[in-house]
Amino acid sequence: MTGAADGATRWALLVEYDGTPFVGWQRQATGVSVQSVLEQAASRLVNDAAVAVTAAGRTDAGVHAAGQVAHLDLPTGLIESRGLTPKRLRDALNFHMRPHPIAVVAAAMVPPDWSARFSANRRRYLYRILNRPARPALERSRVWHVKPPLDPLPMREAAAMLVGRHDFTSFRATACQAKSPLRTLDRLELVVAGGLIEIHAEARSFLHHQVRNMVGTLKLVGEGRWQPGQVATALAALDRAAAGPTAPADGLFLMEVGYAQDPFAETGLSLP
Amino acid sequence: MTGAADGATRWALLVEYDGTPFVGWQRQATGVSVQSVLEQAASRLVNDAAVAVTAAGRTDAGVHAAGQVAHLDLPTGLIESRGLTPKRLRDALNFHMRPHPIAVVAAAMVPPDWSARFSANRRRYLYRILNRPARPALERSRVWHVKPPLDPLPMREAAAMLVGRHDFTSFRATACQAKSPLRTLDRLELVVAGGLIEIHAEARSFLHHQVRNMVGTLKLVGEGRWQPGQVATALAALDRAAAGPTAPADGLFLMEVGYAQDPFAETGLSLP
Repeated sequence: MTGAADGATRWALLVEYDGTPFVGWQRQATGVSVQSVLEQAASRLVNDAAVAVTAAGRTDAGVHAAGQVAHLDLPTGLIESRGLTPKRLRDALNFHMRPHPIAVVAAAMVPPDWSARFSANRRRYLYRILNRPARPALERSRVWHVKPPLDPLPMREAAAMLVGRHDFTSFRATACQAKSPLRTLDRLELVVAGGLIEIHAEARSFLHHQVRNMVGTLKLVGEGRWQPGQVATALAALDRAAAGPTAPADGLFLMEVGYAQDPFAETGLSLP
Repeated sequence: MTGAADGATRWALLVEYDGTPFVGWQRQATGVSVQSVLEQAASRLVNDAAVAVTAAGRTDAGVHAAGQVAHLDLPTGLIESRGLTPKRLRDALNFHMRPHPIAVVAAAMVPPDWSARFSANRRRYLYRILNRPARPALERSRVWHVKPPLDPLPMREAAAMLVGRHDFTSFRATACQAKSPLRTLDRLELVVAGGLIEIHAEARSFLHHQVRNMVGTLKLVGEGRWQPGQVATALAALDRAAAGPTAPADGLFLMEVGYAQDPFAETGLSLP
């Protein structure tokens, strides 16, 4: 939670990526991460010096982002010596990240103590289930393919039981590093269109795997293997083993991160 | 326009595909086509005998389909001897087409003189433009990336001039084999959401490259390089050179083919 050093300017980035080829947001011992591609592109702007990039949400391997937010610090001198502007930073990072499926959609100058992660007060995720017998062709690696027909009505009933302030221990990865399992889930809503079931989840913050564990449990309800009330029982058990399995990463998208003040308001966001 | 032979049953298929890896719908001397993958999968059901598959719209290389329709003839004996049903045909074709990004979403038995191509009375296409400086990450190969800001208002004005019954010679590929250049364009509508411009086109049938040539011309209007009225002038010129360039295949999707009677009505379409 450190601010930018003297002589450095902090920049916020709005980032979109296809998670399929990556080991996740975070740097790993092996494999290519979204963070490492962004950091290597940024280091090209400072004679290959190391640059750290911090994200609002450290998405897992295979998870996609339409609206990830990150920040990084660059020498303030670049603004005068190299004419660095938000648009030029966006274009330079995109140039150096080719051909990875990562795009900086917008960049903005932010105060030195602003943090993409700790200043965020809202995260919105979308989970997409393709519910039909035929496998996905157009949406391959962007949906969870579930063949047996799911009934959205009991799924909605069960989802409503998870909304609110709860101890989400039953829906938290065992590796989760958050200090408290208490979270306030503001929205968990199903939208059904054709064979696609879209599940929208919103909260100030989520526990590790929380969305995927909730979706994996709702799927049991949709199949009729669980009654909706069993989800409330699983929540009350405060035991990961009491809830359903983790839904695959493919269907999960980080859609939006919210802040008290939108850092990209002046850039017109993704609008050209 | 031949019907099914004696002893053969005609089947309709609802087909979805990602056009990126294919040379197009139609068989070519080299490269993999959607038609050849489907035909090879079908031939596995008849001891590797040749099976011909006919589509409603012969999409070009790189063009996608969410709702292509095709038909094929199979020995009627398979229904009794192998218990062939619409669902089993769908599943068998999908099994044999793996791992190609093609999916038979539904299959249905149709009358022997029914044709996916000649019985069709409506085609709906969607063309997607991603209009922002940053290249697509999530929608790579599924949009036309246009960096300069497009103004949708004059584009809508120009699109309205193309709707109706016209000689579309100016928007027709020189290789187009249709006997008449007369077509009735029922809908050419822009829907703008964020950086995405979606252009919906509907007609009984289209000329070769007609949608892509119309989109390539509308883009000139959106950039301000053409006034909307120049599109009407280009249409009246009856000269391909008078209209704008062909928009790339990546952004084009065949969404739906219409028939007097929906062959998939009883299957519940893409619903499981």
